[in-house]
Amino acid sequence: MVENTTAQQIETYLGAADAAFAAWSATPAGVRADVLDVVADALDAASGELVPIAMAETNLPEARLTGELKRTTFQLRLFGQVLRDGTWYDARIDHADAEWPMGAPRPDLRRTHIPLGPILVFSASNFPFAFSVAGGDTASALAGGNPVIVKAHSGHLELSRATGEVVTRALAEAGAPEGLFHVVYGTEAGKTALLDPRVKGSGFTGSIPGGRALFNLATSREEPIPFYGELGSNNPVFVTRQAAALRGESIAAEFVASFTMGAGQFCTKPGTLFIPRGSGMREALASAALPNGAKLLNDRIQAGYLEVLQQLSGHAATEVLVQGSDPLADPPSPTLLVTGVEDLLADPSALQTECFGPTAMVVEYDDEAQLVQAAKTFEGQLTATLQAQDDDDVAELVRIAAGKAGRVLWNQWPTGVSVTYAQQHGGPYPATTAAGSTSVGTAAIARFIRPVSFQNFPQHLLPAELQDANPLSNPRLVDGKPVA
Amino acid sequence: MVENTTAQQIETYLGAADAAFAAWSATPAGVRADVLDVVADALDAASGELVPIAMAETNLPEARLTGELKRTTFQLRLFGQVLRDGTWYDARIDHADAEWPMGAPRPDLRRTHIPLGPILVFSASNFPFAFSVAGGDTASALAGGNPVIVKAHSGHLELSRATGEVVTRALAEAGAPEGLFHVVYGTEAGKTALLDPRVKGSGFTGSIPGGRALFNLATSREEPIPFYGELGSNNPVFVTRQAAALRGESIAAEFVASFTMGAGQFCTKPGTLFIPRGSGMREALASAALPNGAKLLNDRIQAGYLEVLQQLSGHAATEVLVQGSDPLADPPSPTLLVTGVEDLLADPSALQTECFGPTAMVVEYDDEAQLVQAAKTFEGQLTATLQAQDDDDVAELVRIAAGKAGRVLWNQWPTGVSVTYAQQHGGPYPATTAAGSTSVGTAAIARFIRPVSFQNFPQHLLPAELQDANPLSNPRLVDGKPVA
Repeated sequence: MVENTTAQQIETYLGAADAAFAAWSATPAGVRADVLDVVADALDAASGELVPIAMAETNLPEARLTGELKRTTFQLRLFGQVLRDGTWYDARIDHADAEWPMGAPRPDLRRTHIPLGPILVFSASNFPFAFSVAGGDTASALAGGNPVIVKAHSGHLELSRATGEVVTRALAEAGAPEGLFHVVYGTEAGKTALLDPRVKGSGFTGSIPGGRALFNLATSREEPIPFYGELGSNNPVFVTRQAAALRGESIAAEFVASFTMGAGQFCTKPGTLFIPRGSGMREALASAALPNGAKLLNDRIQAGYLEVLQQLSGHAATEVLVQGSDPLADPPSPTLLVTGVEDLLADPSALQTECFGPTAMVVEYDDEAQLVQAAKTFEGQLTATLQAQDDDDVAELVRIAAGKAGRVLWNQWPTGVSVTYAQQHGGPYPATTAAGSTSVGTAAIARFIRPVSFQNFPQHLLPAELQDANPLSNPRLVDGKPVA
Repeated sequence: MVENTTAQQIETYLGAADAAFAAWSATPAGVRADVLDVVADALDAASGELVPIAMAETNLPEARLTGELKRTTFQLRLFGQVLRDGTWYDARIDHADAEWPMGAPRPDLRRTHIPLGPILVFSASNFPFAFSVAGGDTASALAGGNPVIVKAHSGHLELSRATGEVVTRALAEAGAPEGLFHVVYGTEAGKTALLDPRVKGSGFTGSIPGGRALFNLATSREEPIPFYGELGSNNPVFVTRQAAALRGESIAAEFVASFTMGAGQFCTKPGTLFIPRGSGMREALASAALPNGAKLLNDRIQAGYLEVLQQLSGHAATEVLVQGSDPLADPPSPTLLVTGVEDLLADPSALQTECFGPTAMVVEYDDEAQLVQAAKTFEGQLTATLQAQDDDDVAELVRIAAGKAGRVLWNQWPTGVSVTYAQQHGGPYPATTAAGSTSVGTAAIARFIRPVSFQNFPQHLLPAELQDANPLSNPRLVDGKPVA
């Protein structure tokens, strides 16, 4: 039993985080990278302890959790690599230029990025490792030079405590400043920390109502702070007529695998599949072999799932295309609903409601022009996917999809978000509260840092990444030109 | 007489902006650059028409306004250069990698940036060209591919209209989409546009109360939007004992020139000068030749200036160090107040109040350790300045200053913000509502764009900046390595 953090404990943690900020932000980035490596190694070593706790608390299977932990430690090490290669500084050097054509001499200006201060991370229910205590926001905040306070998710409190202990021990072993990292428990603890003036930024992964409420708190503070909330997404998939004709059966099978993966509890689950009428895809989907039901993460999610499923299946314009034997049981068998594109266009907000769990909506269309029309009705999305052929005329659909989503896919599936340099996991509201940011991939390091310029400074007082000698060998923009 | 924009006109403009978005965002960046050049040329050609209107409306002198217009057109052309060199895409290419050590194969992922949609720019009173109708936010929004609606500042309505006409004509001449750009007038017009769902981002330069009220509106929308507000700054300057001993007289003279420049109506005006007691600097400042009073921008600013001046000079801990013959007249002679660092530490918020106009505060200290203490009491700032010698022990003061401000200066003065690649004009709240952003310099192009990744796309459907052949020759991060 993990107890809620008291107000007094939070005060202690915030004071400690604030005190640790000076030392951690002044720790050279390469040393911070070494610390992240130690944390990653410790988590890998604790896999045998942590995975069983996660299994017991989240109902997720061992292979998935083992893989997720591996992804989590890879992520910590990849941020370390970014710290070492120095791309994250976005270092820029303008030498003084008496002839600068602005009409006044240009001073010597040098721009880099510095950390914000203590960061509050709200962890997610559905990724107990990768978006939780030692997940992406924690990694990017620590990498950037910030102390971290994690609000544990109520769905995996014991795992949060155990993970927090591994991280805290590893940080101490690696020589990180005391007080750099804490885990707190309970809704009130999260709110108290979010409203504390010492907290300078926050990340969140969860529901639209929960995330919006916290966003409102963060922006209503006397000093508003950046709040990176990932809230919800339907992740539509558009199948062209040609693709359906050529690969309809395999698209149907891949779709079923993707929307039921992890019992449909991925934020990138494809929630809507547009298929051409009369292509045979409806029949292929209707006869698809659905996997057995799997227990959802927790009772609250089970209850929420049933509510949205009944809402969607009760809509006058939908019918059940296929479902397992016990769609409303615990665990629930998967369900595929079907509607027509005309109905979706008539009532988009009801029929595009995200259903967190093993349900998705198939939408039949006649004409590919309707795909463009339908795509325009979606709110902001994490992903949008095309299943199409190279000679399909889909440029306009791609343009609309990119305007709605943070990631657009071609003949692949949105579930499984690779941690890379070019990943973008984000999107316009309500997919996130900050479409300019990503929560996955190396660009996430930009979340908790800010630019600062030094004008006319002597070399010895400049940060290393801005010194003429370039002791860190980081890439820079020198007088407007990239120097790798 | 410029009339307020009606609700019906705003509706028309927003519809037009929304319609123009598709064409403008799809216009190649190099063509957008050419359009910006045409706008810059047209503004330069209209200097003889615009500057006299600006003089009549703002009380600013001809040389200043001519220089500011030159800076404004330089800025438009510099954004064009950024569009052509392609740094602004931050293009990233990850090739597919079956051995990616995350534990799952890496797909082909390619990340670039796309525009947000119609942008609302609130122009500033104090820079009728550079932070107004054709100013920095307009330039960066247009450059990024967004339509622009400018809310004209009430202080220079005729100039706004005239500038808007020049811009609109030039855009048409250059072949930009119709409806790309509008100017609106009146407080209600600004609010209506800010709350309209078609507006996707906003920039603002002005006061703390005004900016905060608009920030609150922007974040309270059903779809919150990024709001880049520049609100207020005191811009402290710290003079070390050595610097005072070696250069006290010239520092005093330079300070007077800086805080009275433009009648003290710069957001980067140095509002507080820390000097060592017994160094002779107090005497140098007390006998400084202050310039004559100059008329402030408008009556509202004159009234606000007198109110804050009387508040500061009425504070029990301040006295007048030197002032011209008519400090409370219109135009007001400059005033220098003086207090002690102990008093500042005892009542920082009152004594650090920004006074927009030709007044500044001198703060005497004994020990340089008090500078660090005092620096810690400041809220977020646009700038912080050290006047110091190379062998001064100021590393801690520099660290604190960088933690408070967007730009830190060494032996120069914060007024005069150069438009360059490495400029950072921004800072923690209340200097701005978005410390991660700049309103001056080429990095400002990041304000109104967002990242999007394309996964597994065929070459012909990728944006040019992400294609293997690199037809635009833009720099990119390929598999994590910068390729210039």
